[in-house]
Amino acid sequence: MEVVNVGADLLADAVEAQATVVSRVDWRPPMAGTEADLATLALDPLRSEANTRALDAMLGVTAHLVDVLPASEALGLQRGEFLHAGPPLTWERASGPMRGALMAGAALEGLVDDPEDAVALFESGSAVSLEPCHHRGTVGPMAGVVTPGMWMFVLEDLATGRRTHCSLNEGLGKVLRYGAYGPEVLTRLRWMGDVLGPVLHTAVGAVRDSVGPIDVTAILTQMLQMGDEAHNRNRAGTLMLLRDLSPAMVTSGADPRDVAEALRFVGANDHFFLNLAMPACRLALDAARDTEGSTMVVAMARNGTDFGIQTAGTGDAWFTGPAQVAEGLYLGEYGPDDANPDIGDSAITETAGIGGFAMATAPAIVRLVGGTVPDALATTRRMHEITLGENPRWSVPILDFQGTPSGIDVSRVCRTGILPQINTGMAGRVAGTGQVGAGLVTPPAEIFPLALARLAELSRQRQAASTPR
Amino acid sequence: MEVVNVGADLLADAVEAQATVVSRVDWRPPMAGTEADLATLALDPLRSEANTRALDAMLGVTAHLVDVLPASEALGLQRGEFLHAGPPLTWERASGPMRGALMAGAALEGLVDDPEDAVALFESGSAVSLEPCHHRGTVGPMAGVVTPGMWMFVLEDLATGRRTHCSLNEGLGKVLRYGAYGPEVLTRLRWMGDVLGPVLHTAVGAVRDSVGPIDVTAILTQMLQMGDEAHNRNRAGTLMLLRDLSPAMVTSGADPRDVAEALRFVGANDHFFLNLAMPACRLALDAARDTEGSTMVVAMARNGTDFGIQTAGTGDAWFTGPAQVAEGLYLGEYGPDDANPDIGDSAITETAGIGGFAMATAPAIVRLVGGTVPDALATTRRMHEITLGENPRWSVPILDFQGTPSGIDVSRVCRTGILPQINTGMAGRVAGTGQVGAGLVTPPAEIFPLALARLAELSRQRQAASTPR
Repeated sequence: MEVVNVGADLLADAVEAQATVVSRVDWRPPMAGTEADLATLALDPLRSEANTRALDAMLGVTAHLVDVLPASEALGLQRGEFLHAGPPLTWERASGPMRGALMAGAALEGLVDDPEDAVALFESGSAVSLEPCHHRGTVGPMAGVVTPGMWMFVLEDLATGRRTHCSLNEGLGKVLRYGAYGPEVLTRLRWMGDVLGPVLHTAVGAVRDSVGPIDVTAILTQMLQMGDEAHNRNRAGTLMLLRDLSPAMVTSGADPRDVAEALRFVGANDHFFLNLAMPACRLALDAARDTEGSTMVVAMARNGTDFGIQTAGTGDAWFTGPAQVAEGLYLGEYGPDDANPDIGDSAITETAGIGGFAMATAPAIVRLVGGTVPDALATTRRMHEITLGENPRWSVPILDFQGTPSGIDVSRVCRTGILPQINTGMAGRVAGTGQVGAGLVTPPAEIFPLALARLAELSRQRQAASTPR
Repeated sequence: MEVVNVGADLLADAVEAQATVVSRVDWRPPMAGTEADLATLALDPLRSEANTRALDAMLGVTAHLVDVLPASEALGLQRGEFLHAGPPLTWERASGPMRGALMAGAALEGLVDDPEDAVALFESGSAVSLEPCHHRGTVGPMAGVVTPGMWMFVLEDLATGRRTHCSLNEGLGKVLRYGAYGPEVLTRLRWMGDVLGPVLHTAVGAVRDSVGPIDVTAILTQMLQMGDEAHNRNRAGTLMLLRDLSPAMVTSGADPRDVAEALRFVGANDHFFLNLAMPACRLALDAARDTEGSTMVVAMARNGTDFGIQTAGTGDAWFTGPAQVAEGLYLGEYGPDDANPDIGDSAITETAGIGGFAMATAPAIVRLVGGTVPDALATTRRMHEITLGENPRWSVPILDFQGTPSGIDVSRVCRTGILPQINTGMAGRVAGTGQVGAGLVTPPAEIFPLALARLAELSRQRQAASTPR
């Protein structure tokens, strides 16, 4: 096919960019050293059907917002227990923003008066413990620190009763999840605990009990038609949540000034819905977990030090490597030297096919994370090369309503060398800094061959077990 | 330039579609009989600078929502006075939906008990009068009927004090503006008069007096990044309005149940913001009116019988021709035979460069009005052929943030034969029906040569006056 371009034509550039990318794919060799494992898995009799089942399970989940509860109640989190983003981590290996968030959390829970005093607490390790959000049915953006007193969104797959959780979003800038711990951070978190959480609890309960719980998956469908990719743009989603909750907030019986303040807080934070998008993605992906023989990725998560993935066919094992620093745009005077390596469970959005995978539907995001509009289009097209299928409920109008690329396949990643594209916020490297920018990042390449090797090993074990002796 | 397309590639199709259109432009002859007038205007010494001034004046206006008032107060509208959409019209020439809306309006104002009785009232013409919205600083979607008791949005250009107005949007389906007049229509309008209007009046006033009036032009900027083209998609705009007004609604002192009902009503009506987009467009275009020598269109409006335009260089003159029937998608069992010709002042959005002109930014709209995603992209590109410039505040991310095509030039329309593309709702032909669908429509071609002829006549008069005798 030939396209004649008349005048300056950015869409032609976009097509050119895509064509270039697609050509590259055809010529790219597999990742070094993966040939034998790829061959093993190509012949695995379980793989194809297992991947279909894993993908279908994920695509079949609808996430509903059923409650807003303190973490102590929703997760049974005890005093001194801290959840964090990403794969398992110790205080010793924790990065600046992770430490800053833990320090803020310790002060919020009253374990110390001054966040700075928490350093000794975590170094001693006697009265505190760290555990990944992912191990407690939870996901957390950036540092992802959860303490017992924080209010959590509770999402449920009504068909199975399976639940996931996420804290309430604090907004941007100097906030706990970006590692800030100053007085304004704690004041905001206390207001969220005293006012916002209870108001949302009442409103979410009233909506659930009158018209039924809010369908978060359906809101995501609409967001993708409204310029949100649901990782770094959640503006439409936040507004739809306000639309659905505000009438019940008004009649909640709370002081109208508190309700107005809650409406203003949520309305001023375009990222508020991220903390619903993330557990909705997690809930869908959880349905694909523990599918023997499947090479589908069910989690990608970063703790600011390590980047880890889990796959449907490898149980609870994490395959980890060093988290990378994003490339992107910086706030104010900040620059690349100020940025911490990649952090947060928010890559669960990309794992489920949105975020960086849906950038084509959110071209305005290039103003936040860098790159160009043709890049954004090309990225979504490229992600189809490493995914098992498309999500019919999450479609991209500008790509003629093609479904989002869904179900990252470890085999396809290793065979093509194409890494999942994540768009993300950047935390300051130094504890206490807060956000310094937003940008684009990929996982460390080596974790996919690691996962592939384990999948191939399991395949060989199954093969050996089924061979008559 | 050559673009190699690998696999099915809808963006390549889009480019192809655009390229085809652009080629057509290059080969299209001027509209028949316009050659002499085009030559006159090409040599007019005022035209170029006048068009620049008209365009700049339009682009310079920022519309703020300063009040919500009854039409009796905002416009001085008296009992028995009815405003309607489009150019001037008599009851005798009025279409079904226009008659239905007038009948509903008469019942709402208590001039008759039963809307059916209003037929005699309007036939007699003694106690009632009809006047275009446009003649009273107002725009009205579809039938556009305004009566003294209806609450109106009041928009102001703070720099000049110039104001425009529009009624509150009733939602879709069986509503007055689509010509329905059943009991549910009147019940809804009475609730809007008794509850919604006063609540909005208080909230808009409180916002204005505390943080300053809401910037409608800025909301339109955001909408165009969120999949709205602000004619038939106003979902994001409606949500942003709710975001900005809801805190003040909560603290308005009104009964919380009334506030909750108002929030629910607006939140359930994705078109609510249309009635702010329209007067914002009108306010901008009004700044370009009465620019001697300018060939820019400052209004396109339809009354269901006639389609009329006004230009910056021809004062208050209307150039009219028969309104066309849109092509599009129909609701339920309705089909083309049920549709009334084009009706409403809402083409003011296209006149200002959004709506059909910005379809590229709202590809999901093809599911409502028909056509394809490549068509939507091609339409916006095509409209740049007949406009004077681009709007830097209203940009289209997918076209790499190109400004919307702004300032329809009568000369360019006649020279290329390309007609402005409008996307619109379709009213039922029979009074009382309501909405039957949505689709795409253009003005009758002949009105542009009519306007061109008058502009050329004025140019010749100026030339004669300036020639020494």
